[in-house]
Order: sequence, then C-alpha cells, then structure tokens
Amino acid sequence: MKALILAGGKGTRLWPLSREAMPKQFIKVFSDRSLFQKTVERALIFSKPKEIFVVTNKEYRFRVLDDLNELGLKVPEENILLEPVGKNTLPAIYWGLKVINDNYGDSVVAVLPSDHAIEVNESYMEAFKKAEKLAEKYLVTFGIKPTKPHTGYGYIKPGEKIEVEGKVLGYLVDEFKEKPDLETARKYVENGYYWNSGMFMFKVSVFMEEARKHSPDVVKAFEEGKSIEEIYELAPEISVDYGIMEKTNKAAVVPLNTYWNDLGSFDAVYEALEKDENGNAVHVTGFKAKYINVDSRNNLVLTERLTATVGVEDLVIIDTGDALLVAKRGETQKVKEVYKKLKEENDERAIVHRTAYRPWGSYTVLEEGERYKIKRLTVLPGKRLSLQIHYHRSEHWVVVRGTAKVKVGDKEFILRPGESTFIPAGVPHRLENPGKVILEVIETQIGEYLGEDDIVRLQDDYGR
Amino acid sequence: MKALILAGGKGTRLWPLSREAMPKQFIKVFSDRSLFQKTVERALIFSKPKEIFVVTNKEYRFRVLDDLNELGLKVPEENILLEPVGKNTLPAIYWGLKVINDNYGDSVVAVLPSDHAIEVNESYMEAFKKAEKLAEKYLVTFGIKPTKPHTGYGYIKPGEKIEVEGKVLGYLVDEFKEKPDLETARKYVENGYYWNSGMFMFKVSVFMEEARKHSPDVVKAFEEGKSIEEIYELAPEISVDYGIMEKTNKAAVVPLNTYWNDLGSFDAVYEALEKDENGNAVHVTGFKAKYINVDSRNNLVLTERLTATVGVEDLVIIDTGDALLVAKRGETQKVKEVYKKLKEENDERAIVHRTAYRPWGSYTVLEEGERYKIKRLTVLPGKRLSLQIHYHRSEHWVVVRGTAKVKVGDKEFILRPGESTFIPAGVPHRLENPGKVILEVIETQIGEYLGEDDIVRLQDDYGR
Repeated sequence: MKALILAGGKGTRLWPLSREAMPKQFIKVFSDRSLFQKTVERALIFSKPKEIFVVTNKEYRFRVLDDLNELGLKVPEENILLEPVGKNTLPAIYWGLKVINDNYGDSVVAVLPSDHAIEVNESYMEAFKKAEKLAEKYLVTFGIKPTKPHTGYGYIKPGEKIEVEGKVLGYLVDEFKEKPDLETARKYVENGYYWNSGMFMFKVSVFMEEARKHSPDVVKAFEEGKSIEEIYELAPEISVDYGIMEKTNKAAVVPLNTYWNDLGSFDAVYEALEKDENGNAVHVTGFKAKYINVDSRNNLVLTERLTATVGVEDLVIIDTGDALLVAKRGETQKVKEVYKKLKEENDERAIVHRTAYRPWGSYTVLEEGERYKIKRLTVLPGKRLSLQIHYHRSEHWVVVRGTAKVKVGDKEFILRPGESTFIPAGVPHRLENPGKVILEVIETQIGEYLGEDDIVRLQDDYGR
Repeated sequence: MKALILAGGKGTRLWPLSREAMPKQFIKVFSDRSLFQKTVERALIFSKPKEIFVVTNKEYRFRVLDDLNELGLKVPEENILLEPVGKNTLPAIYWGLKVINDNYGDSVVAVLPSDHAIEVNESYMEAFKKAEKLAEKYLVTFGIKPTKPHTGYGYIKPGEKIEVEGKVLGYLVDEFKEKPDLETARKYVENGYYWNSGMFMFKVSVFMEEARKHSPDVVKAFEEGKSIEEIYELAPEISVDYGIMEKTNKAAVVPLNTYWNDLGSFDAVYEALEKDENGNAVHVTGFKAKYINVDSRNNLVLTERLTATVGVEDLVIIDTGDALLVAKRGETQKVKEVYKKLKEENDERAIVHRTAYRPWGSYTVLEEGERYKIKRLTVLPGKRLSLQIHYHRSEHWVVVRGTAKVKVGDKEFILRPGESTFIPAGVPHRLENPGKVILEVIETQIGEYLGEDDIVRLQDDYGR
C-alpha cells in the first residue's frame, strides 16, 4: 500500500496558534510531534518510507523536510510534491496518484489529511486492510462511528453492504450529508450514519476513470499543462468530495471505530484535550510561564506567559507571546474573521509567528520597538546563514549557547558563550555553527528601517 | 489651608496593572498624569507647594519624588514622610498632622487619598471652602452625592444641619454605614445618604484631642517612640474611620456633587472609563499593539499587545506584556487571590512590573530565557548608574538612542546610536548619560545566574 499525505492546508481558524506560514499540521502545541509527523507515523504502518508521498504548498517545503528529518526518515525528496498554489483536494490527489503511478504503476493508495487527530487501534488496522481490498473496485472513504451528534462534521449514510468471500468489508455510500443542525445530527446518529473522516483509499486506475467521468476539467489541466505551474493555473479549485465522491456510484464506506477529531476550530481543540477537575484544558509553555485559576471552569487556556483567570467560564484563551485571542467557546468559527482583518491590514502577524523557520534553523522576534528589533537565532549544527549585507541596520550578536564562526568583512573568528561582535551597516557578514550542538545567538538590530527585506544575499547554501 | 496626601497604599486589586512596587496611585494607564500627580494638582488649588505634605511608604520615595519633579514642583523633601511600614490611615494622618503642626502651628489640613478619581467642579470648590470653616469645630468628611445604589462603597447618614451665619455648611454625621447589599443601598440613596469619599478636613488641635480620646494607643506610640521606626512598631494598625470618625461626636459631613470613583477594582475602572458603541472600554499601548473586536460587548480591555476578542461579554482583559489576567466583570474583587498566590509562590511578578523605576531612570525586562536576560535601560539626562560589578554575568550594551558615557575597567569612552560594548563578569563598569536627551540602551546579560542581587556597588550617586 502506498500513502499520499495531504499537507497543503492553511488553517486560518486556529489563529494565533497557527499562521499562514506555519499551519496547524506543522505546529507542536499538542505534543512533541506535529500532526504531520503523526500522520507520517501512521502511514509507516502500511508503507515503506519511499512509498510515502506528500502534496504540500511550495511555501511549506522546509517544514515538511524538517519534520521528516526529525523523524530520521529517508523519504526521497522527489516524493514531496510542491503545489505552486492551493486548488483544494482534487488537483492535489490527482497529482499525487499520477506520480505514484509513474513510479510504481497501478497501486492502491491511502490518502491521508495531515491536520486531524486520530487514534490507531485494532479497528483502524482492520479498516485499512478491508479498504485495501475494496479499493480494487471502489473509491473508499472511512466513516467514523459517531460518539455524539456533532454539528461540525459531514456525515455518510451507508447503503447496501459489500461482501467479499462471505465477509462484510464495507457499504456502498448511499449519500454524503453536509454539516447538520443538532436535531438532524441526532437523527443521523440514531440511523447509523458515520462522520466523514476525509481519509480515502483509492486504486489509481479506478480513481482516474472516475475523475475523467466526473471532473474532466481537472484531467484536462494535467494533460495540457506543460509545467506544474501551468497545470495549476488551468486546474479548477475543487474538492475531491464535490468533484468525484458525491457523483460517482463507486463510493464505498468502511466503518472505523476509534477516536477522531478534525481539530477544525478551537472548540474541537478543547474537545480533543484532557481536562482538569474544573473542566479546564490547559497547556502552558515558555520560560517562567504559569497558569493561576481562581473559580474558572470549562476553559481552553494555551499560553506562553503568566496567565490568571478569575471567575470565567467557557472561554478560549490563546496567548502566543506576540498575540492574544479571547473567544467564547461555541463561537470559535468566527476566529477566521480576526485573521481576515489582519490580512486586510497587511499585518504580518496573520502570516508569521514570533518564531520563523529557515533552512539553517529558526529565529524568534523577542521584542520590537522604534529603531530596534531583538531576535534569538537558533542555528543547527553544521549549518550557516547566507553571506549577506544590510544597508539600513547594524547588528550586534551575543552568543548564549554553542560556538559561532563569524565572518565580518575580511575577518573570520570564533565566538563562545558570553562573547559578542558588531556588524556595521553595509558590511558583508555571515553566521555559522561549526559545532555539534545548537548555536543560540541574541541579535540586536539598530536602524531607521528594520524590515526583513533589507537583505542582499551574496552567497547562500540553500539557493535563496 | 495645608494638604496632606496619603500615598502609601499597596493596591493589590488591580494586579497585573499595579504591583506592590508600583501601586495604582503612581501608574499612568488612565492618562499621562498619575492619580498621585492629579491629587497634587488638586491640593495646589488651596495650598502652596511647600504647604503640601505626603505620607507614603519608604519604598515609594523615588516614585513620589519623580512624580513631583515631573510636575516641576518644589515640594521640600522634608515634606515627604516615609513610613517604615504601613499601619493603615490613622498613624499616617496623625504623623502628618503632627509634622504640619511643628512647621506651621495649629492649621486646617485637607487629607486627600491619592488613588481615587474625582472631578473638580464648582461644587468641589464650594465644599472645600465650607469644610475649611467647619473644621474649626468639627472633624469633616466629604460625602459624595450618589448617582446609583452602589454596593462597593461605604455610606454616610447625615444628621442635623450645621448653620453658620445663616448658611448651611454641612451636617452632623448620624452614622457611618459599611458597604451595603443592593436593596439596602437603594434605601440609602432614597434617604439621602452620601458615599464616603475618604477625604477629610481636619484642624490639627481638634483632631489631636479626638485622637487622644478615642485612640490613645496611637497617641502613646508617637509620644513614647524615639524614632519613626519605633513609633511604627508601637502603633496599632488602624484606620481613621474606625479609630476616630465612627466614635467621635464631632464628625460632620459636607456634601459634594461631582464625579467620584475609588477605582478599587477592575469593575470600578470599567465604570470610570469611556466606552465605545459596543460598551467596550479599550486602552491599547505599546509598539504594534492593536485591538480587534469581533462581536464582543461590555468588556474592559487594557493591553500592550495585539489582542482579539471573539463573541465575549462582560470580561476584564488586562495584558501587561509579562502577565495576562482574564476575569469576569462583577467578580474582580477576587483578583487579590491571584496576587496572594503569586506572593505565596515568591513570584516577583506580584511585586514588580516589566518596567522598574530607579533614581537614574528605568529598565524594562524585554525577555528572559535560560542563561540570558534582555533589558531596555532608559537613563535620564545627566544621570548615571552606580559603579558596579557582577560576578555571574557578562553584559553587552547597544545604544539605541542618545549618547552614553561608559566606563569599563580602566577605560572610559563614548557610545553613539548603533554602537556597542562588552563588560566581562567581574569587571567594574558604569553607564552614564552625559547628554541633554534620554539615553536608551539594550542590555543583553549572559550567565548562569541572572538575579538582580548579583550586584556589588562601588559608588552610587543615590546612596544605595
């Protein structure tokens, strides 16, 4: 079985926890593994590393590479398909299956979204084995057995059962249902409908035939486009559900009885996390951060600082150091309006976190003021930043941890913890970690203009 | 008329806005003048600068001096009475009146708390003039005409009217009433009771006589103690209300019809501030800070960062950069429990803000991590820090604004914006602002131990 992981989602509903440059599949708030990494681990149950393919946005290339690298996995870089622009799930899946077909011929492929939470249990293992068999003839969806009449999920109405060699492997899909109101959701659950998990099992040949039948414009884009940019320009923006699954008569559903949560809003995140005796789901990270609760109940509190709540109930409180969100539980779908407003105002906090990831490591903006900006740079062992010049700012580097090799103008020297150097504006410079452990540097920038775009790269190891 | 300003309050109910080292009378959140400064301005209506006396805690000496200095006022430093420990209002007032008597003989003194909001209008001016006359025979309180049946204030029941030369100057006090429940408060308002404002007008001789009668242990402490430390050790902790006003038969009340608010909790602060069309009282400060409101009503939002609220009502949201409070309006009296917990845990954030004030200026802790701490130092023109040594940390100074004169070991030199220097652990050093404008320096400390107490002062301009 091959695996195709969908990792191009932008996830604007969990702002400020996720940002455009770092969507929820890559953040590590809920555990020390990202949701993407956990999806890769699930794919490894049935597939070898080289049989795992990823479709993502070109912006997320280093996120995917870093996450795979951290897992110590040798997924070939050709298996990572970089979309020039997001066109929803159908073009992404079509591309992925086409590449898998080119590499391995006609194959059965598990299609896995990478931003959900799901538990692997016996039912999961069995369902995937059943789905693999069914995929020879059907386009297979996975239907989660509901634990309550949830109004935030789509539902699948199962039809006639499909037996193979005297064993029920699944059901024909009678109908896909949009998110219902509460009363309708109750009826769905009573009548044995399933939650639509967004996972699929497709055999390439079966899928391609149905794609040609129901979404010929997608197929045409891939046949006529001469480059992936051209293909994605031609392709319509369309989901696999709308473009194929709801139209084909080959849709089948395999029931799956396990914990599943789409983490599609902070309400869903609250549901997914463990609660204390007062019903509070609390997650505190960061230096000197802590949470003090006075008479507060049923809140979601994710914070990087000292946070106190007094007498509040049913709130979502998200503090990411550079931004704070306080929302009413049950209304968190409106969080995307905050994101929209920030985008309208060209506020970069819609797009980036305090911490931004780079091929050489990461930097965190600790503080900004008029005429100064302070960053913590983390450089991975053996990596170096580009040889660069800034015209409008001087920079001051103080080493906190590790060993730095520094080039300033013609000079090259080593800095150890507690040592520092000064880079005047206009002077070429480079920071390198020649050591075996992480290098941490505090950078103070001073100048009239401190934008990230005041940079001229003279040489770069990453072709930027 | 002399003035005695009470400025020793610790104000734990407005945490994290106020802290033990910077209580609410000195913070400038509500305007560019502190409440203490506004009280001084009111005192100046009836008194000359040298007739204004201040009783405060010795910890707040520089807060009082800085605030007076900022107003350009020449209040003699001897007029600032520094209590070694807080013993509530009676010992403070007794001491103040005694010092005024030593300086000016028997005088009429306006006693003014410095942490309330009050508007000066015609009624205010008249009331003070009436009170001055009444003080010849009575211990005068000021009773605010209620605008609603407030349950957070004490009430005064007026008795027989006091006429002088055919003019009603005030009323005898029939009874002082504790904070009532809502129904009782309604009755009080219907029956013409007043809010107890905490302001007084006392003639020294009248006050001293009543003190001897009703609180002889306070008088005794002042007679027997040989130093102010000893006096305050002997004196009981007691309020002027309980110790004298509720017992004397010389209490009078002068009605005062103006805006008054004791700002005793965040509920009171919300009442005092202007609201937008959604009933939100919002105050945003800080670089790149802003507030985004999606469907939120009737909240108090005081923030230093990007803050968004979604669908919330009746909340108090206070963000001070280093700490966040989210409380339910109507339950903000419980905020002091947060403060208590922090004290129990020896958390310095009960006591100090990110910004700490020093005789030479101030510093703000921008960021702390393991092995590093970053501060912004602001040095006033002509001032300098002590000549000092740290044993456990090296320091790196980068000048952002202004001109620094720096001494490191034997060397002395000038640093301009964008320039920097390095102070190794164990080396004597000093930072000075020789210029005419503010000096701003970013300091990065690196070391195993970064506590404020790792400092040896070799010389200090302020006798520390």
